[in-house]
Amino acid sequence: MASGIDPSSIQALLFDTFGTTVDWRGSMIAYLEAFGRETGRAADWTGLADAWRARYKPAIQEVRDGKRLWANFDVLHRETLDELIPQFGLTNLSDDERNYLVRGWASLDPWPEAITGLAHLKRAYIIGSLSNGNVRQLTDMAKRAGIPWDVIFGADTFHHYKPDAEIYRGAVELLDCPAEAVVMVAAHNNDLEAAKGCGLRTAFVQRPTEDAAPKGDWDILATDFEDLARQLAA
Amino acid sequence: MASGIDPSSIQALLFDTFGTTVDWRGSMIAYLEAFGRETGRAADWTGLADAWRARYKPAIQEVRDGKRLWANFDVLHRETLDELIPQFGLTNLSDDERNYLVRGWASLDPWPEAITGLAHLKRAYIIGSLSNGNVRQLTDMAKRAGIPWDVIFGADTFHHYKPDAEIYRGAVELLDCPAEAVVMVAAHNNDLEAAKGCGLRTAFVQRPTEDAAPKGDWDILATDFEDLARQLAA
Repeated sequence: MASGIDPSSIQALLFDTFGTTVDWRGSMIAYLEAFGRETGRAADWTGLADAWRARYKPAIQEVRDGKRLWANFDVLHRETLDELIPQFGLTNLSDDERNYLVRGWASLDPWPEAITGLAHLKRAYIIGSLSNGNVRQLTDMAKRAGIPWDVIFGADTFHHYKPDAEIYRGAVELLDCPAEAVVMVAAHNNDLEAAKGCGLRTAFVQRPTEDAAPKGDWDILATDFEDLARQLAA
Repeated sequence: MASGIDPSSIQALLFDTFGTTVDWRGSMIAYLEAFGRETGRAADWTGLADAWRARYKPAIQEVRDGKRLWANFDVLHRETLDELIPQFGLTNLSDDERNYLVRGWASLDPWPEAITGLAHLKRAYIIGSLSNGNVRQLTDMAKRAGIPWDVIFGADTFHHYKPDAEIYRGAVELLDCPAEAVVMVAAHNNDLEAAKGCGLRTAFVQRPTEDAAPKGDWDILATDFEDLARQLAA
């Protein structure tokens, strides 16, 4: 399937990270299970991964609503972990152990074809993250997993979480080009809807753990990053 | 020579770009001379490169002093070029040609050992730009020249030009670590002085076009980036 975008009109692609570029769920379950084996603890690690991720949207919503001052993803993940710990029978976790678990969010593995797809796209376009993660976390993740970002934008670059308009507009300003020369790539319809509202182009990529189907008039529908690269003739 | 820094205390190195990482002068003279050949124009291209660069500090000073609103490096370079054009007999340059010359600042070549030195340092540390250039310009430069930045910070990330404290503090905040875990690397004493004032470590690298000698109590003195990598055991 060819995309409806003229590739020569595009200068940069911005990628959602958690769920779109990396498999947060499979990676985090494996990270928690390994922690359990190494420390001799038993718990419903899959349940913890899912419950932890489920707390992410309410946590950033408090920041987005101005109910609390800016706090980055690591801070929010530590708080939501602390909230969940009693329910998973892990109250004997030390402070260092809790921080180790939070660092799991910087240790996620890309979807199988993500790196090769990005490598193709990088030849023709600027490729960057535009994530609710923080720059340090995204940098550590990229170095560990070999994600070849040209540029890393996190929520803390702009002190706004997606889908606030400020984060999309801020990224376009730093890319110093028209909004329509930038494609937002995500497995989340609400991310694309907000990006479209700011004038960016949109590409929906289907991922097994994220939105089940595209719901919106997106410029590109792709099965994965290699398909995206083919459609953009990269 | 060994450095006075324990490498295990360092998490990230931030590099000045123009003059420290890339040879702005040799590259810009070559860029202007090639433009002259291609368009059949004769001018004192070396004089223009030097005069253009000399206008950079007064231009950013107006922004730093709050005498004008934020303007990025590309905007300032276009203004200072327009000012210099009569004196170099180039008044017949079109708008497109002037913008082409401005893009020369994103087409600079690294010093000969810069890429290999950075590749070594990248294995052990986060390496990033911390430049008065803008993110787009620095990204284009890195893609063209193969500079392997993990992360790119420009003046427009923070809307402050060096040596304003806000740019160093902003970068440390995004690196999410203590200031003393970050080394500022520059061929300019005033850059290192400001970084030191914000708690960062400092490395002076001697470059033929920049400050002739270190003037300050810097943590590391290096002859080039490969020497820096050796001193930091990267």
